[in-house]
Amino acid sequence: MKILVDAMGGDNAPLCVLQGAADAVREFGDGMELVLLGQADVIEKTAKENNISLDGMEVIDCREVVSMHDDPVKAARHKTDSSLVRGLTMLKNGEGDAFVSAGSTGALHVGASLIVRTVKGVKRPALATPMPGLAQNYLLLDCGANVECRATTLNAFAVMGSVYAKKVMGRPDPAVALVNNGAEDTKGTPIYREAHGLMRENPVIRFVGNIEPRDIPAGNVDVVVCDGFVGNVVLKLTEGVAKSLLGMLKDVFMHSIVTKLCYLGVKGGLKGIKHKMDSEEVGGAPLLGTAKPVIKAHGSSKAKGIKNAIRQARICVEEDLCGTMSAALAELETADTTMKKGVEA
Amino acid sequence: MKILVDAMGGDNAPLCVLQGAADAVREFGDGMELVLLGQADVIEKTAKENNISLDGMEVIDCREVVSMHDDPVKAARHKTDSSLVRGLTMLKNGEGDAFVSAGSTGALHVGASLIVRTVKGVKRPALATPMPGLAQNYLLLDCGANVECRATTLNAFAVMGSVYAKKVMGRPDPAVALVNNGAEDTKGTPIYREAHGLMRENPVIRFVGNIEPRDIPAGNVDVVVCDGFVGNVVLKLTEGVAKSLLGMLKDVFMHSIVTKLCYLGVKGGLKGIKHKMDSEEVGGAPLLGTAKPVIKAHGSSKAKGIKNAIRQARICVEEDLCGTMSAALAELETADTTMKKGVEA
Repeated sequence: MKILVDAMGGDNAPLCVLQGAADAVREFGDGMELVLLGQADVIEKTAKENNISLDGMEVIDCREVVSMHDDPVKAARHKTDSSLVRGLTMLKNGEGDAFVSAGSTGALHVGASLIVRTVKGVKRPALATPMPGLAQNYLLLDCGANVECRATTLNAFAVMGSVYAKKVMGRPDPAVALVNNGAEDTKGTPIYREAHGLMRENPVIRFVGNIEPRDIPAGNVDVVVCDGFVGNVVLKLTEGVAKSLLGMLKDVFMHSIVTKLCYLGVKGGLKGIKHKMDSEEVGGAPLLGTAKPVIKAHGSSKAKGIKNAIRQARICVEEDLCGTMSAALAELETADTTMKKGVEA
Repeated sequence: MKILVDAMGGDNAPLCVLQGAADAVREFGDGMELVLLGQADVIEKTAKENNISLDGMEVIDCREVVSMHDDPVKAARHKTDSSLVRGLTMLKNGEGDAFVSAGSTGALHVGASLIVRTVKGVKRPALATPMPGLAQNYLLLDCGANVECRATTLNAFAVMGSVYAKKVMGRPDPAVALVNNGAEDTKGTPIYREAHGLMRENPVIRFVGNIEPRDIPAGNVDVVVCDGFVGNVVLKLTEGVAKSLLGMLKDVFMHSIVTKLCYLGVKGGLKGIKHKMDSEEVGGAPLLGTAKPVIKAHGSSKAKGIKNAIRQARICVEEDLCGTMSAALAELETADTTMKKGVEA
């Protein structure tokens, strides 16, 4: 198996990407070959200066870099000698089995759609994010790639999220819920009401109904479905509230000598909370619905984040994520056609 | 000034309502008369058993009760002898200056629209909620009363929220922001992009642009505008994430004797955080755009929540909230017409 890694993407590239790649090779490198894409001279210099071994990794020289300020569509179309576009093109051509990048989400999303293409039944890939939950992590999709969605699109997200939860997150029978402003079937906008109906009849998933936003962080379901506008709110507000509360907590502990001593007593436990909320632990965000696996690592990923994204990519390949997803969507389409025929008959 | 209070609404009615009303009379009762609506025998019995003085309060006997399980529209139309409908009717007829209820949000919203009616330019009242922010509280609207909104409606929310922040929350020059999935003007759905344009040209508010969800909890703006679906997510997810994190924190402190001792050292500070996140402190949720002030206290309000909601109602009356709002909306309409004429000319 060959995993393509964008060495120039992310706030801490290329250093942390190289560290993460080296760690991945050391920890789970058996039967896996890594290909690093980026400015070869910079990559080799950084590796040398930091004593990072690139043994067994191929480096493919690309001269252009896609920055966070580039227009996603223009970058995906015209920066053909960038690590991002070259990586996606190699993936498409079968010169690699999965692509990992911590670069611009927009450019990766557009590039994946244009170059790698999507499986049948999916117009634009969904951006899914594994989120920290109290009981266990859950997969949230869409997180902002598709701000407006039709009911059928939300239903397809449910299938794609369910397959990912099963294959990559190791949930044998994932519970799928739809974000809504109430538990009742009648809640929400017309699109959400229609999506609720479609998901209830969907034979490919285990739909557990609407989930109210206050219950999302508990982590009692495996997949949480919503449009990209709402998903972006869930993703970023979770981060914002946690940051705000941990900030208040810091003030409490910094208050006096006594409270500082108390901090020492619970330091380990507090680190556990931070660890639980840490996006690097939770993993990279897969683009779901692409014809081949594409994993978006967090833009601020350190070595650990990159390593975990490579691990996810590896599992996606091993479990034939895209093939399974394609089969599940085809099954849904067949069921829909049968149902419609039944109604018409 | 006469404030009408629904004595039967909320999880802790009538006891906590009576306590809150008595506290309000004691603390800021000068020039304010309270009218309690509800089953007179129950009210009087509860007051007697709990040594609550109803001195100076009028009790109006209503036999029906609107429960959380009632269909809002049916309740608002047909339960004419309920405290909720009687209160709104008295408000409409000038037999009171404001109405406070901790009862069903849906029934209050429908009832206010049908009975009290809205000011010119508003089709349905918005449900606004004062939310805890790190720097200071902010007003969030709409919180779920209007799940689908046009751009002009979002723009009207901006005006209404701004007037409330100025008049009731004491912010002399409120900063108004629009929830969106990015800071740039071009972000969001077509409706949010259009709303952004309208708000930027709106002469009645100080629009500070889009706010990303991760920045909302910081509390650096005074008014946060979005549709009711998104607002419901912001409201309830804030609650959910806080609950989840405080739960993790509790586990950390309960871990051993040492951590329990540490808890004692920071107990005061932690209470401060809880206090800051407490909806009862932050206050009731005004229905904005009604012809007369209607305040929804939190369903689980204790005495303090009711007292604070009565205080808000008092300020709304003193500051002529509804009159000011009506004038501001009229000013917006004039500006719009002038602008359109300018474009056409």
